[in-house]
Order: sequence, then C-alpha cells, then structure tokens
Amino acid sequence: MLILVVNCGSSTVKYQLFDMQDPEQGRVIAKGIVERIGLPGSRLEHYYDEKSVIREREVNNHKVALEWILEVLTDPQIGVIQNVKEIEAVGHRVVHGGEKFRESVLIDDKVIEAVREYVQLAPLHNPPNILGIEACRSVLPDVPQVAVFDTAFHATMPPHAYTYAIPYEYYEKYRIRRYGFHGTSHRYVAERTAKILRRDLSSLKLITCHMGSGVSFAAIKNGESIDTSMGFTPLEGLIMGTRCGDIDPAIVLFLMEKEGLSIKEMDEILNKKSGVLGVSGISSDTRDIEDAAPSNPRAQLTLDLIAYRAKKYIGAYYAVLGGLDALVFTAGIGENSSYIRKSICEGLEHLGITIDEAKNTVRRKEAVISQDGAPVKVMVVPTNEELMIARDTWRLVAQKR
Amino acid sequence: MLILVVNCGSSTVKYQLFDMQDPEQGRVIAKGIVERIGLPGSRLEHYYDEKSVIREREVNNHKVALEWILEVLTDPQIGVIQNVKEIEAVGHRVVHGGEKFRESVLIDDKVIEAVREYVQLAPLHNPPNILGIEACRSVLPDVPQVAVFDTAFHATMPPHAYTYAIPYEYYEKYRIRRYGFHGTSHRYVAERTAKILRRDLSSLKLITCHMGSGVSFAAIKNGESIDTSMGFTPLEGLIMGTRCGDIDPAIVLFLMEKEGLSIKEMDEILNKKSGVLGVSGISSDTRDIEDAAPSNPRAQLTLDLIAYRAKKYIGAYYAVLGGLDALVFTAGIGENSSYIRKSICEGLEHLGITIDEAKNTVRRKEAVISQDGAPVKVMVVPTNEELMIARDTWRLVAQKR
Repeated sequence: MLILVVNCGSSTVKYQLFDMQDPEQGRVIAKGIVERIGLPGSRLEHYYDEKSVIREREVNNHKVALEWILEVLTDPQIGVIQNVKEIEAVGHRVVHGGEKFRESVLIDDKVIEAVREYVQLAPLHNPPNILGIEACRSVLPDVPQVAVFDTAFHATMPPHAYTYAIPYEYYEKYRIRRYGFHGTSHRYVAERTAKILRRDLSSLKLITCHMGSGVSFAAIKNGESIDTSMGFTPLEGLIMGTRCGDIDPAIVLFLMEKEGLSIKEMDEILNKKSGVLGVSGISSDTRDIEDAAPSNPRAQLTLDLIAYRAKKYIGAYYAVLGGLDALVFTAGIGENSSYIRKSICEGLEHLGITIDEAKNTVRRKEAVISQDGAPVKVMVVPTNEELMIARDTWRLVAQKR
Repeated sequence: MLILVVNCGSSTVKYQLFDMQDPEQGRVIAKGIVERIGLPGSRLEHYYDEKSVIREREVNNHKVALEWILEVLTDPQIGVIQNVKEIEAVGHRVVHGGEKFRESVLIDDKVIEAVREYVQLAPLHNPPNILGIEACRSVLPDVPQVAVFDTAFHATMPPHAYTYAIPYEYYEKYRIRRYGFHGTSHRYVAERTAKILRRDLSSLKLITCHMGSGVSFAAIKNGESIDTSMGFTPLEGLIMGTRCGDIDPAIVLFLMEKEGLSIKEMDEILNKKSGVLGVSGISSDTRDIEDAAPSNPRAQLTLDLIAYRAKKYIGAYYAVLGGLDALVFTAGIGENSSYIRKSICEGLEHLGITIDEAKNTVRRKEAVISQDGAPVKVMVVPTNEELMIARDTWRLVAQKR
C-alpha cells in the first residue's frame, strides 16, 4: 500500500510517499517540499531514487501545491508512480487536536469541523493543516485521509499535570490547559526504545527529550505520556532556538509596560527573539553556539542554561515517574550534539544516568550511550514522525477494509 | 541588647522587640502590629507578658505608626521598657535588594538610595520598607539600623540558575533575572536544620519548602542557595494562595487578548485571583480546601496540583543538588498540614523520601518526620524570620563597636 504523508505549514507543503509493504519499517519512495506558497518564487524540491530536482512555478494556494506534488509523483521522468490512483491513503500531520482527539482518526466533515474549532488554540498551525486536508480531499476525492495530531499522545496526562493554577473559569471557557506537542515524535521514540531494549513498552519508565528548534521533554510511564514540558502552546518549557520556555509570567507584564509593547509585539519577542538566540545574541542554532562558546561567555552561558534547565526537567520527571529506565535523545540537537547530551547528563549519576564518552560520539543513529551496566539506559533514537503518520494511516485504513 | 525588628507593608507595621542576651535564641519581650495606616480605623494590637491589648487611633503614615509603637513599648501599663534609649538597634525587613545586596547591611544614605532604585523591581514592597526605615531614623536618630533583604540569601545562585532565556538586553537594561524571595526564612530554616541534625551546614544538601500564603522552595548546597522557585517576582514557581506560579507565558497574552484585559487587570488576576483560590473557587486558604476536598472534586484537584507541582520541584532540585540530605517544611502550611506534607512525599521513596505517619502529626514544632533510617531526613522546622533579622542586626551592630 502506498501512503502519502502531508505536513502543511502556512506557506509550505512537505510530503513523503511511503510504500507500506512492511508497515513497521515503511519505505520512503519519494519526498519533497513545496515552499513559498502564495509568495513570489514558489518552488518544489523533490527527492526520488537518491536524486533530487528543484522546479519553480507560481503556486497560489495549498490545492495548487498538492496538484503539483501529484503531477511530480506521476511524472514520467522524475516520478515514482504511474497513476495517482496508486496512492491508497493520505496521512496528515495536524498540530492541535484539543481535548477531543486522543488518537489518530479517519477524516470526515465532523473531524474537519473540530480541527477548525481548535484554530483559536493554534492560530498559526491548524489553518494550514485544514487547507492541506481540504486540498487533498479535492484532488484525491476517493482516497481515505487520516489526521495524526501532535497533541494526541499527551491526552493521557492526568488533570494534576495539565491544569494551570489560574481561575478555573478560563479552563471552562477557553480550554486553557497543558496540551503538549511533538506527541507523534515522543510516541515514535518511545516505541522504538522499547523495541531496541527488547522490553515491553507498558513496563517502562521513560523520559524522551525531543531537542530540535522546538524542544520538549515527555515523561512516559507504561507507554502513556504522564507529563510534558510544552503547555497550552509550544512556548512553555525548555529553552528553544528562539522561544523563551519557562519564565516568571510577571516578566511578560513588566516588559509590556516598560517597553510599551503590544500583545503581538510581546508574543513576537517571546516566540521569535528569545531562547538560544536571545541569550547568546548570535544565533538560534546551537551548532553556532557550540562553536562560539570557547571564546564567548554569553554563548557558554547559553549552553549552560540549556543543560541546567534540562537537568531540572529530568529530575522533575524522574520524581513523578517513580524511577527511570531510559533517557532518550531525539531530533536535530538530540540526535547530533554530543556536547549537549553530555552536558545534560553530567552530574546526574545519582539518578543512575551516565554517559560513555566513546559511545556518545554517535550521530543520527539508534544507540545506547550510557556506561555498561548503568541503571538508566541513555539513548539516541532518531525520530521519524512521517513514518509514524504513515503507520497510523495504514492501520486505520487497513482496519476499515 | 534590645533590638527592635520592623516589617513594614503598605498599610501595616509589624514589630517585635527582642532581648538578645542569648543571640542564638533571642527572646521576644513584646510584639504587635499597627494596621490600616492611612485608612479609616487604624488600630494597634500589642502582645506583652502573655497578654494582649488593642488600641485605636488615627494613623496617617508610617512615622506616626512608629511613634505610637515606641509610646506603647514605654507605656507604664502595657509597655516593657522604661525609655526608648534602651533600644540599641533596629532591624528592618527589606524585600528587594537587587543584585547589590548579598547580605544584611548597616543602613546609611547610600543603602537607602539603592533600595529606592529597586522600587521598580518591587513596586509594592520596597516603598513601605523605605518609609519604615525613614520613620525609624527620624524617631530613633541615634540608633543604628540594619536592612535584612528577602533576596540576599539567593544571591549565591549561579548565572545558569538566574538567567531567563529572553533577549539578554532586558537583563542589562532592567536587571530582569531570577532573584528569589523568602531568603531570610530559607536561611533560618537551613541553619536550624544543620543544628538539629548536628551536621555542618557546609556539608549538607537541603531542599527547604517555605509554604505559607506565598510558597517558595530553595535548593541549598553547602549552606548556599543554588536555586529557588520564585523568580523575578514572587509570582513564579509553586501554586500559592492566590498566585498562579508557573504557567505557559503565552497564556498571559492569550487572556489579555481574548478578555480585553489591561496589564494591571491581568496582573491582578495572576497575583490575586489565581492559585489555590482560582482553581478551587472556594478559598485561598488550604485549610478550607482540605475540609472541602472529600465532597468537592475541584478542591481535591487543587490539593493534587499542590502536591504534584511540589514533587516536580523536589525532583528538579534533587537532580541539580546531586543528592539530598534533608527535605524541610516550614511556614503556615509547611508547619501545620500533615495532609499536604504527606501528599508531597508520597511516591518519592526512590529519592529516599519517606513519611512516618505518626511523626507527621506534628504541628509548629521542630521534628524529623521521615521513617527511621531513611536516606533523606524529612523535617518540620518552624521559621522565624524576625529572629534572623534580630540576629543579623545584633551581629552587625556588635561588630561595629
């Protein structure tokens, strides 16, 4: 079965075409991205058979982008299939599933309506997700579509983990609570971890550390997310590329008053100008910060902050999990930065956490990097959200038959 | 030596007169409070020789309040001294010492000037503290005065614990950083803990839990605060009577936009209408919530939240301390609520934390309440900020001689 996985941003459509003959592993037969939708200079980058091409064309909306993708996938030269009918299902990444969606679902009108309701909770993300779904329904009308939510995996969090101590009426009125994000990644990594360790996921206590430009940690007990660091929005939690993570909420009001900032300007500062970029003043990319640190005290402070805050979250989750079997790093930074992994783990030997320096040189490969015989397995497990979406889509469509 | 300890709020002056013959223990020979300064119905409540009296009189400002206090202390009937000249020093609680004051200091014009600078960091607290200092200098002109800062004990925090991941210019421009509060209480409790355990404070890893209407935890390593839960202001951290503690900072902006709230209104909601009051909808007093919990799910949720967030902070500090010798509860809730102490400690056995249910019935008394032989001593140590202020004052004035 061929499954198309689609991830729509406000001006982008990313796609991967999976052959799901082996539904556990999947196989990507083509992938790519359409960029600058609705902007001058729209382009498509397409990868197939270890080759890549770039094409340019005017693309005014997500439907046109999807039509172009299907055209490319069936192109006699650069395509990988003969006919769009070979695509048997489409899986969509949807950011916010609110309180309703606790798992992936087959899309119908009611699902779209609900995703539309959650636009107020994810004003930047859900609208393009809806555009992508509608475009696919239009260009592939007979193909079943599945929505895989970033929030769904965290739906198992108990009320004491998701409730904020603000007036309760705001939960009732606006559903302000912790939702958590990166759920598909945390779920994928947790499942892989169990497989690698040859353990039953339902018997494991895990902390999964998704560290990319967005950063979130999750506490996973017996296969269920019991807490995660991102909250009502992806702003809360650890230090990210440009996002502040946890701060005294009074700082928001203090700065608005002192600097005469609007709500929008303040939002921009906390989401786009803070985090690694804000503290270092150099870059939002931790690779630049690692390079600069030996001669730049603020770059070193940034790295120290990243590690220190991570240690605190690991300690917090260690406490509420009641122990720890594995600490797992994933995503861009987590899969690649030996320095950051080491600086996080250092000094946590009393939690059973160790680093084997030789093993810690690994990049983008599944590996155990803790010392032999240590109580906690420290691991690197590259994430694969697209495969997870393809798997969920496969499962739901196969079930339906 | 007789030392007057003064704690000024916007409409109150609290006082305690200490006999410091034994500077370690001190002895309170009179204490009281003037309330409703500058408001109709000003009153003074005075305690002496296990008796108490209430007086009423118009009190327009802090100077008049201090004059009244001196009058009462020297009153032939209800007073405890013959002449104000017997007071050899005055110790003041000052909330915010900014980055400058790392310990208590003898007050001179420069100190007052610096405390005035920090008004922008503590607009509600430092102004009455300054009024109190000026009033005492005016009514007791020849008596040395000492400032004891709520922030000073936390001045040992390293940059990676006090820096927020917002643009660094805001630290440079406004000194936005974590300061922490309740420092005098955390310091007192840490010192008592070492004495009770007959250990050297400089060899101990402690988590001190100050739980009153304000709540803050501190991680204390070798006698120094290395982290604390309150931040730039006393709003951050754990759930408090009416304060929200940690929330996604995006919630502040979301609510301002959706509800059309001003900065001041939002501040009011987060500081006065959130926390225990906001979640429970019943009361800011956890005693009311404990009473209501058996038949009220939101009251139970409030208690669950208090315990859960506390566990996470304990875990975070356990991680960065590199272990734990004692977990110490203090202040109104910490000294009195067996339920809350127990619900916090439950499930933390893997950190070496236990509760002996019989010992945990203790109230307002120094006690070890963990199980015999457990790795971590769980303790109750009633706080005494006034004694700490009296001790610091005694030490600085005696040194000066």
